[in-house]
Amino acid sequence: MSCGSTKSIDIFFTAKSVAIYGASASQNSVGQAIIQNFIKPQYTGKVYAVNPKYNQVLGVPCYPTLQDIEEEVDLVVVAVPARITPRVFEDIAAKKIKAAIIISGGFSETGKIGAELEDEVVAIAKKHDIRVIGPNCVGVVDTHSHIDTFFLPEYRCGRPKPSNVANISLVSQSGAFAAAISDWTAELGLGISKLISLGNKCDVDDDDLLCYLAEDSTTQVICFYTEGYDESKGRSFFDTAKTVTPNKPILVVKSGRGQKARAAASSHTGSLAGSDKVANAAYMQSGVIRVDNFEHMFDAAKALAMQPPAKGDRVLMITNGGGLGVMTTDALEALNLAIPSPSAELENKLHQNLPAYCAVGNPIDVVGDTDASRYDAVFKEAIASGEYDMFVVGMLLQTPSLGMDITNVIANYQRQSGLPFIVVSMGGGFTTKAGEIMELMGVPTYATGEKAALAAKALAQYGEIKYRDKFNKTLISDKP
Amino acid sequence: MSCGSTKSIDIFFTAKSVAIYGASASQNSVGQAIIQNFIKPQYTGKVYAVNPKYNQVLGVPCYPTLQDIEEEVDLVVVAVPARITPRVFEDIAAKKIKAAIIISGGFSETGKIGAELEDEVVAIAKKHDIRVIGPNCVGVVDTHSHIDTFFLPEYRCGRPKPSNVANISLVSQSGAFAAAISDWTAELGLGISKLISLGNKCDVDDDDLLCYLAEDSTTQVICFYTEGYDESKGRSFFDTAKTVTPNKPILVVKSGRGQKARAAASSHTGSLAGSDKVANAAYMQSGVIRVDNFEHMFDAAKALAMQPPAKGDRVLMITNGGGLGVMTTDALEALNLAIPSPSAELENKLHQNLPAYCAVGNPIDVVGDTDASRYDAVFKEAIASGEYDMFVVGMLLQTPSLGMDITNVIANYQRQSGLPFIVVSMGGGFTTKAGEIMELMGVPTYATGEKAALAAKALAQYGEIKYRDKFNKTLISDKP
Repeated sequence: MSCGSTKSIDIFFTAKSVAIYGASASQNSVGQAIIQNFIKPQYTGKVYAVNPKYNQVLGVPCYPTLQDIEEEVDLVVVAVPARITPRVFEDIAAKKIKAAIIISGGFSETGKIGAELEDEVVAIAKKHDIRVIGPNCVGVVDTHSHIDTFFLPEYRCGRPKPSNVANISLVSQSGAFAAAISDWTAELGLGISKLISLGNKCDVDDDDLLCYLAEDSTTQVICFYTEGYDESKGRSFFDTAKTVTPNKPILVVKSGRGQKARAAASSHTGSLAGSDKVANAAYMQSGVIRVDNFEHMFDAAKALAMQPPAKGDRVLMITNGGGLGVMTTDALEALNLAIPSPSAELENKLHQNLPAYCAVGNPIDVVGDTDASRYDAVFKEAIASGEYDMFVVGMLLQTPSLGMDITNVIANYQRQSGLPFIVVSMGGGFTTKAGEIMELMGVPTYATGEKAALAAKALAQYGEIKYRDKFNKTLISDKP
Repeated sequence: MSCGSTKSIDIFFTAKSVAIYGASASQNSVGQAIIQNFIKPQYTGKVYAVNPKYNQVLGVPCYPTLQDIEEEVDLVVVAVPARITPRVFEDIAAKKIKAAIIISGGFSETGKIGAELEDEVVAIAKKHDIRVIGPNCVGVVDTHSHIDTFFLPEYRCGRPKPSNVANISLVSQSGAFAAAISDWTAELGLGISKLISLGNKCDVDDDDLLCYLAEDSTTQVICFYTEGYDESKGRSFFDTAKTVTPNKPILVVKSGRGQKARAAASSHTGSLAGSDKVANAAYMQSGVIRVDNFEHMFDAAKALAMQPPAKGDRVLMITNGGGLGVMTTDALEALNLAIPSPSAELENKLHQNLPAYCAVGNPIDVVGDTDASRYDAVFKEAIASGEYDMFVVGMLLQTPSLGMDITNVIANYQRQSGLPFIVVSMGGGFTTKAGEIMELMGVPTYATGEKAALAAKALAQYGEIKYRDKFNKTLISDKP
């Protein structure tokens, strides 16, 4: 499939008026948790409660049916028992609303009766051009519009914020993971634009979201968590992905590598998890980058969102700690990145500009007593040489001789050269804060050489995908 | 080598009076940074400055030589230029002090002249039975006695604290890594007893520390960072390790797996990094567990310090999130741990005690709406069955139905059964705090299934090492 209009999806993230069907006055209910999200001042649209039991819920006017609302409604969030849902959809159709998120479970995931209810709902939705997310999901969080249907209280499940630098959106089959990732990325401070939990995917699926996020200007990297693909939908997803990846990177965590895990996935989602090898081949052909787990996804996504892709795989490592140089080189080597030694000419220039006790090779060790000036000299010569496609910069800040001006040196050379830079800075308090500053200046920063190497690999892989014709190598066929 | 008396090493961590040779009034000098550590109220011993230039340094009385100090001195920290160090050692010998840490560089790591100076120092030390750590190192941090020779200010390089539950000690060839790990573990809140940077190892070496830490009651897990072994010392280390590992776990990060990284290690330490395969064989034979990097080391060490080793490799995974179950199972499978399904009898009992919509297998999914009672039922039956050697417990706390009583349930079953438990809990704010509470109750808690699986693997590996004779398998030969 190539992408058609994504207008019918847009409303899930931009709705200016939302009705909560099943809004409830009883504490700890899903219907109350959702309305609480929409009465926060951050959401600037209008909100309506729908429930024949109440006149108001938490101060929000409550209507017996959607028909009773005089104003237009853009989006309905459905949190009523499954058996009532078809009736609710008749009401949605009558009100001519075009988008609904069904939070409730009790549909196809529970067996035959549930599946019949789901079919009934889908039939009404199709007939009236209603797009549906769910059922059996936690819905969406949009960090810009503050549309937020996650029915989990913020003290348990933090909500992430968008970053000023670059943002990620994530689509998850699993609602529990969508919630845990919301909470986790909120703490990590990773810039998030949208989180979407798709549940049973009775209508809106990965494909729809992929097309939408490909055109979404607030999403720089598209991430998916999946436990498998059914054959027809999988094919369509990969066809779409192939058209998207030259313009925007796609990262996937797919669980179910092993036999036991695949069995668990089948019992969890009720669908066949499919062959892991077939999925790998499809990822490769469509330019989707598969990562092992969420930590790797966050690390790779941060690099892809903040830095240009690498136009080759030649990495130069610079460090003020010999051990960090060795460990990072180990990690770069394990990922099959090239770590070429400087040419004789470049080596000469570097020796002229560095104290004799610095080690000039790859890594270049500017040694523990350095200030920012040695880094400056290395960047200047190494960039001018054209011998490297990207830079991994070890920045150990435990030693006070290296001042915060190092962050400016790194950010400036990155901007001037247009080459990707990645920083690795191991430690605690001061180091953590300095890393946050480095990232505000646009350069992704990691606590270990392994993480930095993984980020470098992602930039090289995506560079190859983006500039496919210019490369002769098949980097992407390596394990990420 | 088997361990002799470790009394001569003990004084480095228990000295009640310390002289700083080269104490300095000039800001940002090494000689000032070190004396600042010892005048903090936490250090309750006596401190003396030695430097002919001053009468006092930061209010500490300063003497021209050690001889001028009337009281006894247990330990000397040497921070004077290399060429003066032999003279300082004559002074140390005359004062009959038996322990010195040489912080200064400029010795064998710089070439022939430096090596000769180092030989001169060693000759004096040998003649007078002075034990020496260094030169070219940052020395030691002891979190109990507050002996602290790291010359890095605390605002840049945080110092870890001991935990009330279990503590780790780490010996590092690299001073920069010792500092970065001090800073990092301070932020992580990992319980640390001792950090030691050995530098050029002119006298005290890994072997000495291994013997000492093996008997140190405040160290539950011994960790090493190394870039390689020279042949004779390496052999002795592994012989010693073989006698230690049945009683206390040893973890090693050894960098220099790849060719490029090994070249960098050689240029960094001046010694041959040696074959990685030979090292691996030696680790296996001596029961040392090799881990890939510091994150893995911290994760494995936490489990080994807090939990009993596993007497087998049969893991039961319990989760309230299907996706977390699948991903953790993937990770357990990748590490070759056994994930046996419950017997028909156990399955029956579990079905009787759980709602019908819970998935009973391995993993057992007690589903998102659970409270602690379903976990309770699973632990009770699964422990009674004797079918499992350890438990990996998925605890997603984004959903408020699972209250904090789950931590008591987990800790109680762990204590009653004596079996190792590991918790995996993904998320941010509330989840992070709950994880800290879980760990105060003695059960190690991880943010991802991969980390939890790695911890489980370490417990199985160490169980095999500890109970070597009772096992027929060779788990340890697998990659950790």
